[in-house]
Formats: sequence, structure tokens, C-alpha cells
Amino acid sequence: MTTHVQAHSGESHDGDPGAFRREHDLLGDRDVPEDAYYGIHTLRAVENFPITGTAVSAYPDLVTALASVKQAAALANRELGLLDAVKADAIVAACEEIRAGKLHREFVVDVIQGGAGTSTNMNANEVVANRALELLGHRKGEYTRLHPLEDVNAGQSTNDVYPTAVKIALDLAAQRLLDAMEVLRAAFAAKAEEFADVLKMGRTQLQDAVPMTLGQEFATYAVMLGEDHKRLTEARELIREINLGGTAIGTGLNAHPRYAALATRNLRAVTGLPLTVAEDLVEATQDAGAFVQLSGVLKRIAVKLSKTCNDLRLLSCGPRAGFAEINLPPVQAGSSIMPGKVNPVVPEVVNQIAFEVIGNDMAVTMAAEAGQLQLNAFEPVIAHSLLKSLTHLRAGCLTLAERCVTGITANRDHLAALVTRSIGLATALNPHIGYEHATAVAREALSTGAGVHELVLAKGLLTEEQLRRILLPDNLARPHGRQPVRDASS
Amino acid sequence: MTTHVQAHSGESHDGDPGAFRREHDLLGDRDVPEDAYYGIHTLRAVENFPITGTAVSAYPDLVTALASVKQAAALANRELGLLDAVKADAIVAACEEIRAGKLHREFVVDVIQGGAGTSTNMNANEVVANRALELLGHRKGEYTRLHPLEDVNAGQSTNDVYPTAVKIALDLAAQRLLDAMEVLRAAFAAKAEEFADVLKMGRTQLQDAVPMTLGQEFATYAVMLGEDHKRLTEARELIREINLGGTAIGTGLNAHPRYAALATRNLRAVTGLPLTVAEDLVEATQDAGAFVQLSGVLKRIAVKLSKTCNDLRLLSCGPRAGFAEINLPPVQAGSSIMPGKVNPVVPEVVNQIAFEVIGNDMAVTMAAEAGQLQLNAFEPVIAHSLLKSLTHLRAGCLTLAERCVTGITANRDHLAALVTRSIGLATALNPHIGYEHATAVAREALSTGAGVHELVLAKGLLTEEQLRRILLPDNLARPHGRQPVRDASS
Amino acid sequence: MTTHVQAHSGESHDGDPGAFRREHDLLGDRDVPEDAYYGIHTLRAVENFPITGTAVSAYPDLVTALASVKQAAALANRELGLLDAVKADAIVAACEEIRAGKLHREFVVDVIQGGAGTSTNMNANEVVANRALELLGHRKGEYTRLHPLEDVNAGQSTNDVYPTAVKIALDLAAQRLLDAMEVLRAAFAAKAEEFADVLKMGRTQLQDAVPMTLGQEFATYAVMLGEDHKRLTEARELIREINLGGTAIGTGLNAHPRYAALATRNLRAVTGLPLTVAEDLVEATQDAGAFVQLSGVLKRIAVKLSKTCNDLRLLSCGPRAGFAEINLPPVQAGSSIMPGKVNPVVPEVVNQIAFEVIGNDMAVTMAAEAGQLQLNAFEPVIAHSLLKSLTHLRAGCLTLAERCVTGITANRDHLAALVTRSIGLATALNPHIGYEHATAVAREALSTGAGVHELVLAKGLLTEEQLRRILLPDNLARPHGRQPVRDASS
Amino acid sequence: MTTHVQAHSGESHDGDPGAFRREHDLLGDRDVPEDAYYGIHTLRAVENFPITGTAVSAYPDLVTALASVKQAAALANRELGLLDAVKADAIVAACEEIRAGKLHREFVVDVIQGGAGTSTNMNANEVVANRALELLGHRKGEYTRLHPLEDVNAGQSTNDVYPTAVKIALDLAAQRLLDAMEVLRAAFAAKAEEFADVLKMGRTQLQDAVPMTLGQEFATYAVMLGEDHKRLTEARELIREINLGGTAIGTGLNAHPRYAALATRNLRAVTGLPLTVAEDLVEATQDAGAFVQLSGVLKRIAVKLSKTCNDLRLLSCGPRAGFAEINLPPVQAGSSIMPGKVNPVVPEVVNQIAFEVIGNDMAVTMAAEAGQLQLNAFEPVIAHSLLKSLTHLRAGCLTLAERCVTGITANRDHLAALVTRSIGLATALNPHIGYEHATAVAREALSTGAGVHELVLAKGLLTEEQLRRILLPDNLARPHGRQPVRDASS
Repeated sequence: MTTHVQAHSGESHDGDPGAFRREHDLLGDRDVPEDAYYGIHTLRAVENFPITGTAVSAYPDLVTALASVKQAAALANRELGLLDAVKADAIVAACEEIRAGKLHREFVVDVIQGGAGTSTNMNANEVVANRALELLGHRKGEYTRLHPLEDVNAGQSTNDVYPTAVKIALDLAAQRLLDAMEVLRAAFAAKAEEFADVLKMGRTQLQDAVPMTLGQEFATYAVMLGEDHKRLTEARELIREINLGGTAIGTGLNAHPRYAALATRNLRAVTGLPLTVAEDLVEATQDAGAFVQLSGVLKRIAVKLSKTCNDLRLLSCGPRAGFAEINLPPVQAGSSIMPGKVNPVVPEVVNQIAFEVIGNDMAVTMAAEAGQLQLNAFEPVIAHSLLKSLTHLRAGCLTLAERCVTGITANRDHLAALVTRSIGLATALNPHIGYEHATAVAREALSTGAGVHELVLAKGLLTEEQLRRILLPDNLARPHGRQPVRDASS
Repeated sequence: MTTHVQAHSGESHDGDPGAFRREHDLLGDRDVPEDAYYGIHTLRAVENFPITGTAVSAYPDLVTALASVKQAAALANRELGLLDAVKADAIVAACEEIRAGKLHREFVVDVIQGGAGTSTNMNANEVVANRALELLGHRKGEYTRLHPLEDVNAGQSTNDVYPTAVKIALDLAAQRLLDAMEVLRAAFAAKAEEFADVLKMGRTQLQDAVPMTLGQEFATYAVMLGEDHKRLTEARELIREINLGGTAIGTGLNAHPRYAALATRNLRAVTGLPLTVAEDLVEATQDAGAFVQLSGVLKRIAVKLSKTCNDLRLLSCGPRAGFAEINLPPVQAGSSIMPGKVNPVVPEVVNQIAFEVIGNDMAVTMAAEAGQLQLNAFEPVIAHSLLKSLTHLRAGCLTLAERCVTGITANRDHLAALVTRSIGLATALNPHIGYEHATAVAREALSTGAGVHELVLAKGLLTEEQLRRILLPDNLARPHGRQPVRDASS
Repeated sequence: MTTHVQAHSGESHDGDPGAFRREHDLLGDRDVPEDAYYGIHTLRAVENFPITGTAVSAYPDLVTALASVKQAAALANRELGLLDAVKADAIVAACEEIRAGKLHREFVVDVIQGGAGTSTNMNANEVVANRALELLGHRKGEYTRLHPLEDVNAGQSTNDVYPTAVKIALDLAAQRLLDAMEVLRAAFAAKAEEFADVLKMGRTQLQDAVPMTLGQEFATYAVMLGEDHKRLTEARELIREINLGGTAIGTGLNAHPRYAALATRNLRAVTGLPLTVAEDLVEATQDAGAFVQLSGVLKRIAVKLSKTCNDLRLLSCGPRAGFAEINLPPVQAGSSIMPGKVNPVVPEVVNQIAFEVIGNDMAVTMAAEAGQLQLNAFEPVIAHSLLKSLTHLRAGCLTLAERCVTGITANRDHLAALVTRSIGLATALNPHIGYEHATAVAREALSTGAGVHELVLAKGLLTEEQLRRILLPDNLARPHGRQPVRDASS
Repeated sequence: MTTHVQAHSGESHDGDPGAFRREHDLLGDRDVPEDAYYGIHTLRAVENFPITGTAVSAYPDLVTALASVKQAAALANRELGLLDAVKADAIVAACEEIRAGKLHREFVVDVIQGGAGTSTNMNANEVVANRALELLGHRKGEYTRLHPLEDVNAGQSTNDVYPTAVKIALDLAAQRLLDAMEVLRAAFAAKAEEFADVLKMGRTQLQDAVPMTLGQEFATYAVMLGEDHKRLTEARELIREINLGGTAIGTGLNAHPRYAALATRNLRAVTGLPLTVAEDLVEATQDAGAFVQLSGVLKRIAVKLSKTCNDLRLLSCGPRAGFAEINLPPVQAGSSIMPGKVNPVVPEVVNQIAFEVIGNDMAVTMAAEAGQLQLNAFEPVIAHSLLKSLTHLRAGCLTLAERCVTGITANRDHLAALVTRSIGLATALNPHIGYEHATAVAREALSTGAGVHELVLAKGLLTEEQLRRILLPDNLARPHGRQPVRDASS
């Protein structure tokens, strides 16, 4: 079960890789690999949680965010006279290294872990402390000179550090998703413009309805993404409210009265994010509401992306026995047995991402509901689920934009022919010949195979010229310039 | 908030409808309507849970099941000498009346209620007691002569009575669903036979794949239902294991040592169901596993019914701009604005039932997970969710069978034409001309609009006779009698 | 299966209840009960969808909203010269009657129905038309004089009428939920004030952590509700954006170019709600995003209410073998077998509502994702799910406030004693004696049963006076006025 | 986006790592790294699906299963004379190498991918072909000598190969989970025996109920696991039914009539698993029912494991302000700020696994429902979700058994004291003094703090000797040997 703890053999490690140092905690002594920057708390956590095989290092944003919090805390404590300058400078330097991408692989605890993130925080404390010790010329493990808990974690608790770091990581990932959504939105908008004059049959309940343009259809997808962009931006605001300074349960026990404000100010400076401190830190410490809200919005995005991909797959189904209205660009051979078959694999993968995100939302919901009293112990699975959703949705948006939407073409002649022979044209005649007449025409067209146009003329319900005006493409798809024909002529 | 408690004015009520009798409990005195068969415990529960407006009486099976349990318990207690014959007979007679459908409206507590079903059990105790009192010539409320708790509830606890009654109700509802599934299965099977010789293109990933028969397609839906029938039958076995006799927490405290066996034997006789007592009553009292399993199977049924309805809507989409492979029978006008439009409303309503059932499964999952220690306090919402799922799925199956499937017709000529012009025929040539040649033919067919048949002949890849044999309908859709053509000819 | 169509026998019905009138539609003729205000389309729908047994009339807000839309449309059409004044006035008068609560029982179609709400819209058209006919001195069914579709539904489609009406109904229900949330929030806030000075142990991960006040604990629940109030208010904004005037697919076919603006203006006047027209009506017609967002926020509220109720049940568990920190007011006897037992039934019912709401969110998610092309056909189950969630959450908030929270009392002595003997006090000593010393004290306290206070003195780590200052209640629960003791004294 | 394609530099690769070979497909030419065993189809898939960063190689069981299927198919084709012995032997040898664990890292396509698993099957075809080519003395890419599709994939389609391989992988993972569940069950059963005589208060609805033994409480967890073991074993049967030989849509097109039976027989031999061929291959090809069933059972296991862990956390909450009935073994320091705090981190991580599994079930449900017509295109996310659930549940069971359950101790004195002072004893008196008397005693005990024992004696309701017999531990927790005391004495 200890296979998670990787052997160390990199440039940043000194000493004999087979050697160990002895560390001590509440439970006794343990040997930690000499070249490991993490310590005994991390070692135990790795052994306790051999769950997914995915370490926290898989989320670089989270590692960076942890270092940012430690750095901001050290600066605040120095300013408050609670940490001497030498220690503080070493801690800050170590954090800067981590934020620059170094030592990430030392974050070895599993992404799903018990303890509300304690092990992740311990891992951060130990890595920062040991690197700071080295920078001060000491050996790793010489905690009497600089202590992971008393110095690096001073004025802090997992219960304010961990959710704060998770929120920073989520904010960064949300920004990347927003960017990807804009790429996809622009791709749909470009197609909407390209197809602005392509008349086609609209469908409701999968039955031929009334005419529209393919441009309107694609504009819809762009508009949906634009709205989701707004919702995600709103949800992001909520996760910028942090509880740093609340310590164990939000009462701020053991933190200096000015610590919360100072640390948050420093954290804004370090991260460049407009973070704010929650008004009620007791509430903020136990509340998973912002995570649930974010997850709900990601689910919304997933639902609509999935609907959009369902549409793309439907409109392109064929090549001969389906709708065949649009063509998705082929990106790979579709079958190991059917020659020439090309499948809508890019929308299909986005559908699957959507299903995963909806599942992740359920995990977040369960975890949030299970929180008890002053803390939600299940934040690690919340963080894991949300980071997966954000990352995968981003990948899906980019892949969909770049490998599918931008290459879509329309089968214009086929689309036009479907409008001409459609029974749905009868709807446009409704205000001119009445619902009952129109129904009779539609029914006859359906049973005989005749066209609406010819039946209306044969029955003398409208003149050729009236019909022509009513059925002008621009009147059908954007009928708002139209004048009532029957009223005008009668 | 007391509007749930209906005014009483029916034949079975005697006395002045405006009058009250005084009853007493742990919390003090309350006036109960003189003509009400329920008592003070029920009255308080109605006031405490004004949630859904739906009373337990909405589930007649559950009311009947409660009466069955009370009857079986009374018989057991009489046999054990713990209840005198006069009281026992009166209780049995009252239960028989309820089981015959009388007094159902006296079950007035809300279907969603706190307390693990205590209020439903109290409601049953009080209605049985008051009706038994009447049968004995006493007035309602004279509990010194026959007591709702000491006599009707003797040897029982809500914690064994309520889940037992719920399981009986679920079993009855499951039987009705099984019957409805069989109706629907038979409807699909009949169509499978009717369409056995209708060749059509099969599709994978919404792209034209290889030929099959429409009969095979419909047979699939019948087979799926048959498999789900088996799974539901299995899940039903699990809910026939009850915990009667376990009393409060499964230790059987206050029940006679022989009570559990006797009461269950009586309950089998009363209900005609092959009920068994769980081996470990402590486990059985707190375990919601059988409910979760049943709900999971209902979700499975919902998932596959929904998939089937998605297919029916897809295959019938049109009438001119879609697949138009089959026609669903019109059952109502489809639009308030589009004349002649007919929509697949019956499959659509079944889809919605499926979504509801999947949601209900989530409620059951949450409620089951939330159980604590010796009891799951959330059984009422579990019962409510499962009874809704069973009832609505049954309605969906019958409606789908009777108002949709039996009236489906096929557009045979259209289906045949699609096979003939399909590029998917290239797959059948694969073993005869190789994947690379077949791919080239498919690609050329796609880009030029030519047919696979003509291209193969033009390129001299196969002879007319070879092609004819390969493309025989029977070879395409049921190719297992086929001999390799290339191997035979080379 | 026709039992849904209630026999008619009320004051508003004239004629012989056993008589019928003949009506006609696309599919042929049918006899409609003479005294029914609904017509043939409704009749067929009732027969087609015998699903839940719950008719649309169960949602009075939805019925009222439908009448509001019909009224606004009639006014707009009159203004545009598309509906003569006599007809328009009769329609408006009929709608006013419905909005006043009359004829609700004529809305007989099932809440879960196929067809994207067409049957509900048809039901509304027919009831309005037949009542308007009566007001004009005609008989019900004389549609040549005033037609359900050509007149009442003029310029409309189910696809804009139904979602608009649903949104109005949701808005009304959301307002009621917001009011109920405020009642509950105020109840928690009052308790927070009452318990402001009650010191107690805070807990993280169900383990004793550090001191806080019971007031802080209850303030948390108030703050959570306040935040959820904001989120629901935001989500409500989104559902005030309607697509009236988009007709079938959002292109506005058959509606006058000025209709959308006029009808919406009238609808604002009729309802008093600040409704706006969506910018892109094609998108708005098919988009279920606002419903998903609202459902997501309701899920968030449910999650946090459930967490709160879990806490209340935990803090009150006892009376002797549990936490016993607070007492919930007894509202009913808790057991049919255990004398004197009182259970936390009100929080339990709220938990169950929460589970139902989370399940409903799943149904909404599935239904939203299943929308295809220009319309979401599954809006009825979305409406049904959301209306249930809103209504039940409201009931839950009011019941929790009135029957539980306002009556909660605290066991002050017990709470104080737990703080005094707590090992969690060691945390407060952390900054004064260091993490390692504090750990040693905590470990010894745990193994020997001794108190932290006495051990610290015995070991000479701090003076009596230092300890006293550190452990002042105000320092423990609101430590922000504290000065570092060790630093000051050293 | 091509970073997924790992640089190749291992022992199994020959040639210049910077060199490329040219390959060709439907879409044109591409350069494949010379030392890669995969080919152009894999290359394109890697580029098309840069989603999770997790490659199929992360599931060794799935890679092995794919090789098993390819091996069984080659043997069948050789036997049928459709593949010459030289090619067949080379393919078999290549497959054996893969099954021995070699070349796993060549399975580089993303676990979430479009195309119903086509890319995974293509990846397998290419790796097997290229390794077989090497074994035959050819260079990788010389497909004219042995072709990935025409030879390795002969008689196969992704649509039968992929689900078959997935089912084999699931079966292997299910076996491991079953083994882990048995370890956990045995751990609970051992504790049940150890605690068989420890009397304690049972609780319903978190309120003190009636006595039981701690052994009974732990036995419950063992029994639950035993039942879940049965359910999982049943679900496993269903996934042993495969559709090999159905090819593209289940009609078996392009497979020899005897192929299905032969290939399955070979597959049984290769894997040692009792696999069977589905009766209706068309149905089996599109049906995701077995996956939904398996997922539902995993959800059930998760629900009950989560409930069990909730109980363990509750029973051990303390050390001083909680239940403190049992002690979980400390496995790591619990807090970075609270000295001496130890948290129930192992149950907590199992709760989180449960939440993840419930979320995964939702993803499986969505994916299964989304299947259309002859194929479910979303099997990759189904496989991914199920493999995660199986693997993580197994890890959770083992961790819970080894790092928590086996080390649990009981606070026997505390438990005994709670029983003695419990009001719940009044329930045991119920049959002897009646519900009304017992209620009065309970109420007085609650309000005065007195004991039930003393009150009963003071009121003269029972004699000391009667009380002693009624309250014998063995009577309380296992009352089935008890005789009614009142009846006997009266």
C-alpha cells in the first residue's frame, strides 16, 4: 500500500536516495525518505488513503494555490511580529519555488482522502518547511529550526487554508473554462453568420414544424453559451469569498485579530485575484454552498452542451438514411468493420463529458449534504469532482470548437428541397385561410403525397401571388416584416 | 394548517359532524372530531406535516397492507394468550373492513412525514381501534376498553409494522407493473413478427451502418422488456423478506418469543404472499437495501423504456424531413398553431415518466444513505418515491402498448429504397474484396452520389452474380447461413 | 382510463349533466359532456395520459398564469386589429373569471403529459372559448362564433404560451418560498441572539474541536438561509425572461410583428410581474437553462436545509445517551412502543423534502438534456418537478420555523461542563506553549482523564493567571481582542 | 494537444526514437513514431480526445481483456480457415505478450473518447498487428503482410469486441471487490463476536431507544456486506453474457456462422471465465442494461458502506463531548492546529468514495439512456465510471478493514452506565405495567432526572425482583427467551 510514495531521484533532491530520516508525531516515530520534502504526516496519509492512485500533484493549480496561501500567511505573521523575518523569508522563498512549478511531485497524498483536507495541508506545510530549511542551510527534518506546524502553519488551520486554496484553484480553472467557452461560442457564431441565408425546416418534437434558417439554428448554440458564460461568471464570484483567518471553526482562535485581513490582502497580491473575506467566518467555514452553486452551473453547462451535441449528431445523421442536413468534418475512421463510415466522435465525447459532469454534481451534492456541524469533512471529493468537471468541460469545448464546429458544412440543396415539400408550410397559411382549412390541406397533403402549394391553388384558397408572398423565405423565417395577407386582400 | 383533516360527513360516520371528543397523549389533551376514526396521534401528525397535500389514503395498497399487518398481529397475540378473543375478533373484523376498501379516507396523514412512519402506524392503530370499539358496541375514543397501542399495536413497533406494510404494498404494485410490462412486451413482439421481413438500414452512432430487419429492431424492445421482467421479479423477492416481530430495533423487545413466526405465518395467510422473516432482525430493521435494489431496477426499466421511446420518436420523425421509417398512430392533434401536425406524445410521456423515476431513485438513494444507527427514519419518502415509480411506470407501459405500439405501421418502400442506395452495403463486401477496396468504393460512392452496387461492377471487383448472392436480404440481416463468397470463388 | 374526466355537477355548469355535445378535430368526432368547458382536444389528452392522477388544476398558479397569458394575447390582438372587440372582451372576461379562481377544476389534463404542454394549452383554449361563448350568449361548442384556436390562441403557439405560463407560476411559487425562507431565517436569527452567550464545544469531523457559542451555531443557519435567499432571487430573475410572441419555434411565424412587445406589455400589466422578452426567441423557445438554474438553486437550498436539520437532530440527540445540547419542542408522541419517546420529526420531514427536491432536480436535468432541436418536449415534467420542489420546500421552511426552531431550548449547564472538561482547550494554548507541548498535554489528558487546565498548571507551562486570561469565554469564542500571552510575558 | 502521445524510449522499442513511419487511412497520410506499436488510427484518436489525460493503459484489466478477445478471435478464424496459421500464430503470440503485461503503455487513447470504443479497438488492433509483424520478422507498419483490420480484427467489430472486453475487465474487478468485501465483512464479524456481551443503548431517530449489544450492532454491518456480496455476485452473472460474433449491429454480418460460438469458446479458455453468448445479439449489441444493473448494485454497496461509516463516526464521536461509545484506532494526527485531535479519517474517505460511486452511477444512467438505435455510443464513459467505482470501492473496503475496523475498541463502562440511566428501560416495562403507566414514568424520569428503576419501585408498580428479571441484560437485548412477567405474576 505504500507504492504511492514515489522513489525520489530528481535534481532537486540531495542525499542518498536509499537513506531515511526519522520524524515524530502524535502516534510515534517513522522513517521518511531522506530526499523527500514531505514528512511524517504526509507519509501516514499516503498509507492511509491508497484510493485513486491520483495524487494532489495532478492538480497543479491546487498545489500552486496552497503555496500562495502559505506565502500570504507567512507575510501576515511577519508583519504581526509572530514570525521572525528570517523564517518568514525562507518560507516565502520556498513558496515562490512551488508556485514556479518546482516540487509539485512532492504533493503525494491522494486526491480523495479523509480529514477535510488535513493531509493536503500537512503535505504543504512539510514541503514548504523542508525546502525553507534547506534554503536556510539546514537539513530537511530539522524542525526545531523551522517547524511545519508552528511556523509554516502559524495562525492557520486546515479548515481555512484548504478551502481557500481549493477556491483559488477553482477560480483559475473556471477562467480557463470561460475562455474555452468563448472559443466555442465564437465558432458557433461564425457558422451562424455563414449559414444566415440557408432556409430549412425547423422541428418540434422531432416532427417537421415550420421554416427557419440554419443560421438561426447555429446562433442558438452561440447564444446558449453566452448565457452560460454569464452564469459561470456569477458562480465564480461566490468562490472568491474565502474564510482565511477563521482557523479551526471560524472563530479565529489562535489567529491574531488583524491576521484575517492582512493574510487576505497578501493573498490578493500574491494571486492577483479579487478575493474577499466572508462576513461570518463560522458560517463560511462549514458552508459548501458556493461549491454546490458552482457545480450546479457546471451541470447546466453540461446539459446544454449535451443537448447541442445531440442536435449536431442528429442534423448530420446519414449520409443517406438520415437527416443529412449538415456534415461534420471527418476526424478519424469510424469503424473497424464498416469501410468509409465516419462517426460524430467529437460530439460523442462531449456528450460523455457532460454525463460525467452531471455525475460529479451528484457527488458534490452528496458530499455537501453530508457536512456536519462546524465543518464539511468531505471537501476533498468536492474539490476533486469540481476540478475534473472544469478541466474536462474545457477540453470538451476546445475539442468541439476546433475539431468539429469550425469544419461543419451545410447540404443547402437538400435543405431547400425539404422546405419546398414540407407540410409545415400549411402553418404559414393559417392566418390567411384559417386553422380548419389549413388542417384539411395538411391532411390531404400527408395522405396523397401532394404539396401544400399545389393543393391550396387547386382548392382556390389563395392566389398564386398571395402564396408567393406568404412563402417568401424572409417571411417564413423572419416574418416580422409581414403584413397579414388575407386582411389586406379582403 | 389543519385543512388536511377533512370534514367528515359520510355514511360510515355517526353522530353530530360538528361535535368533538377529547383525547389525551404525552403532550396533553386535544379535541378530535367526533365522527373521525383516527385519534389524537393522527391529528397532531396532520398538523405537523402539511407538506404535499397527498394523504396516505392515496396509496390504497399501503392502507390495505397496514390492515393486513394489524390483523395478523392480533391473530398471533390471541394465539399467544396476550390478547383476549373478544378484542382480537373485533380488531380482525375492523381490519377486514379496511381491507375491503372501507375507511380508507380516514388515513389522513401526509405521505411525506417525519418519524419513520410512526404517524402512519398511529393512524392505523387508531382507525382500527375505533372501528373495533364500534363493532363491540362502544363509542369511538373509549380506549380503556380497547386501546390503539396496548391492544391494536400489541407486540409491535412502527419499526417493524411500517416497513412490513410498505413491502406488501410494493409487492402488489410490482405485480401490476410486471403485468403491464408483459402487455407491452407482447405488443412489441407482435410488431416484431409483423415486420419480420421488412429490410431496413441499421444505424450505429446515428450513421448508416448495415442492413437489418425492422422485425429485429422491434424484437429488441421485446427482449429488453423480458429481461427487465426478470430483474424486477428478482428484486421483488428481496422485498418479501420482512422484519415483523423485531419491534423497536430488531431485538424483539416486548414481543413474545414465538410472535415473529406466528405473526408472519398469519400475514402470509391474510395476504397470500410468500413472505419470510429476515434472519437478522436488527440488520433488517435498519437496512434499506431492498428498497435501494428495487429502486435501482426501476431505474433500469426507466432507462430502457426511455431509450426505446427515443428510438420510436426518431424512427417516426417526419413526416417529410425526417427518418419517416415508421408511423405512430395519431392520438391527438399535435399543435395549437401548426395544422395537421401530429406528435409522438405517447412516447414523450413515457420519457417523462422515466425521468421522474430516475429522479425518484435519487431520492431513495439519499434517504437510504441518511439512515442512522438502528433505524432509517426516512422510510416514508422511500415508500412515496417507490410507489410513484411503480404506479407511473405501469401507466406508461399500458399507455405505450395500447395507444402507440399496437398501431405502428411501417413505410416499407421507403425502407427498402434506403437499403438499396446505402453505402453501408460496402461492409457486406468487406470479406470479399477487403477493407481497403471496400473503403475506396464507399468513399467514391459518398463523394459522387453513385451506388455501391454499380461501382463494384464498374471496377470489376465482383461479378453481378457474386454481388447478388452477397446482397440477398437474408444474407444481410441474418448472415449466418452465408458462405464466404471470395474464398469459395478463388 | 377515462376516470380522470370528472363528472360535472357544479353551480357553474348548466344543462343536463348526462348530455353530450359533439366536437370535431383532426382525428374525427367525439362526444364531450355537455356541461364541460373543456373540449375534444382536452378529452383526448385525458384519455392519452392517465399517468399520475393529478390534474393541472392541482397547480392553481399555473391555471391562473394560463388565463393571464390568454388575456394578454387577446388584448394585444384586439389592439392590432386581429381580433374584434366583442370576441376580445368575452375572452378577457372569461380569463378574469379563471384568474378569480373559477373553472379551475376544468383543467383536467394530467400534470405529466406528452406534447410539450400542448394539451394544457388546448385545455386553456377550450375552457376560455366555451366560457366566452356563454358570456356572449352562445352555447358551449359553437366554435364558429368564437374558436379556441383561431381566436383564443390567435398569434400563439403552445411553445410560447406554455413556458410563459409555467414561468409565471414558478415566479409566484418562488415568491412564496422566499417569504417562507425569511420566516425561517428570522427564527434562527432570534435563537442566535437568545443563545449568544451560551459557550459550547465546536466540533469538526464529529470530534471535539474548540469552543464557540451556541449563538454562533444558530447564526450560521440564519446566514445560510440569507445567502440562499439571494441565490433564489437571482434565479428568479432568469425565469422572468419569456418567449411570448415566438410562436412555434421562435421565428414568430403567424404573429404580428408588434405582437410580442404588445402581448408582453399586457402580460406585465395583468400579472404585475416585471417580465421581459428574450432577445433571441429561437434560442429562448428551446432553452431549458432557466429551469435548470432554478432547479439547481432549489437543490442548493435543499442541501443546506438538510445539513441544518441533520445538525438539529444531532445536537438534540438523547435525552441521556447522546449530545443533549439542545431540546427540540415535542410535537407528537414519538413511538407506538417506546413510552415517553419524542423524536425530531419536524427536522426529519424537512430532510425528506430535501431528498425529494434533489431527486426532482435530477428529473429536471434529464428532461432538459433530452430536449431536441427547436423545442424541449419535456417541459411538463420540468414544470411538475419544479412546482413540487417550490411548494414542498416552502411547507418545510414554515413547518420547521413554527413547529421546531422557535421552541428550541438549550441545556446550558451541560454545554458549559463540556467546555470545561474538553481537551480542545489545548488548542487555545497552542500559541502560548507551542504545538508540541500542547500535543503532549492533550495526549496525557486523553489517557488519564485529567483536565487540560490542571495538567498545564502541574507542568508549570503557564501561570494560573495566564490560563485564566487565555480561557476567558470571550477569548475562546471571539478571540479577536486577544493579545499573545506568551509573547507578552516573555 | 498531442502531448498525450508519449515519447517512446523503452526496452521494447527498437529503432531511432526520433524517426517516423508513414501510415495511411481514409483521411490521408500521417507520420507515426517509428517505435510506436500503435498506428495512424490511434494517433488520430489521441489528437481528437485530449480529455482526461488518463489513457486506457490505466486499466490493465481492460488492456488484458482486449488482448484476450483478439487472441480468441484469431484462434476461431484460423479454425474456420479464414486466417492462415502463420498470421494466427503471430497474433496469438502478440496477444500473449500483452496479457503478460507487456506493451500496456502503447494503449494511449483517452479513457473518455467518442466512438463507442472504436479508438480503443483500433489501438488494440494496431498494437497486436505491429507486434505480430515484428514476431514474423517484419517491420512495424508493413500492413500488407498482416493487417490490423483485415487480419487482427477479422470477423469482428468494435461493437462486439469492445463491450466484450469491458465486461471481462469488469468481471475481474468485481472479483477483487468481492474479495475485499469479504475481508471487511470478516473484520466486522470478528468485532461482533468480540463485543457480543457489551450491553448498550440502541437508538432510533437519534433518540435513545432500547438496549442491545454492541455485538449486534457490528453484526449488522457484517450481515449487510454479506447481502451486498450476494447482489454483486448476481450482477456479475449478467455481465458474463457477451455479444461476441454480433459484429456491427448484432446481425453477425461478415462473421462466419460458426464464428460466435467458436470465438466465445476460445475466450472462455483464454480467460478462464464462464462467458456465454447472448441469445439475441441485436439486442445485446445495443443494450446497456447489464451495466446499469451492475452500477445500481455498486450504488447500493456504496449507500450501505456510507451508512456504516456514518455510524462509526457517530459512535466514536468525542472524545468528551460526544457519544464516545467506541474508539477508532488513530492513524494520523487529525489537525494542523488542534493538538492531540484525532479524526475518523478512514471512514471519512470511504464516505467520499461512496459519494463518488453514486455520482458515477448517475453518469452510467445518463449514458445508458442516451443510447440510440442499434448501438450505445457512450460505452467508454460507462466503462470508465464502472471501473473507477469497482476499484475505489475495493480500496475503501480494504482500508476500512485494515486501518479502522480491526482496531476498534469499546468503552464498556460508559456504555453500561448509559443503559442503567436510560429512560428507554421504560419500554421493557411496557408489557408489564402498560403503555400509559410507562409513559408517565418516562415523562417523570425525563423531567426530574430520576432513574426509571427507582421511579417504578417508588410508585410500587413492580417489585424489586420483577424489575431485576425484566432488566436482565439477556432479556433486554435478546428477549426471546423471556416470559411475560406481569402475566406470570398476576
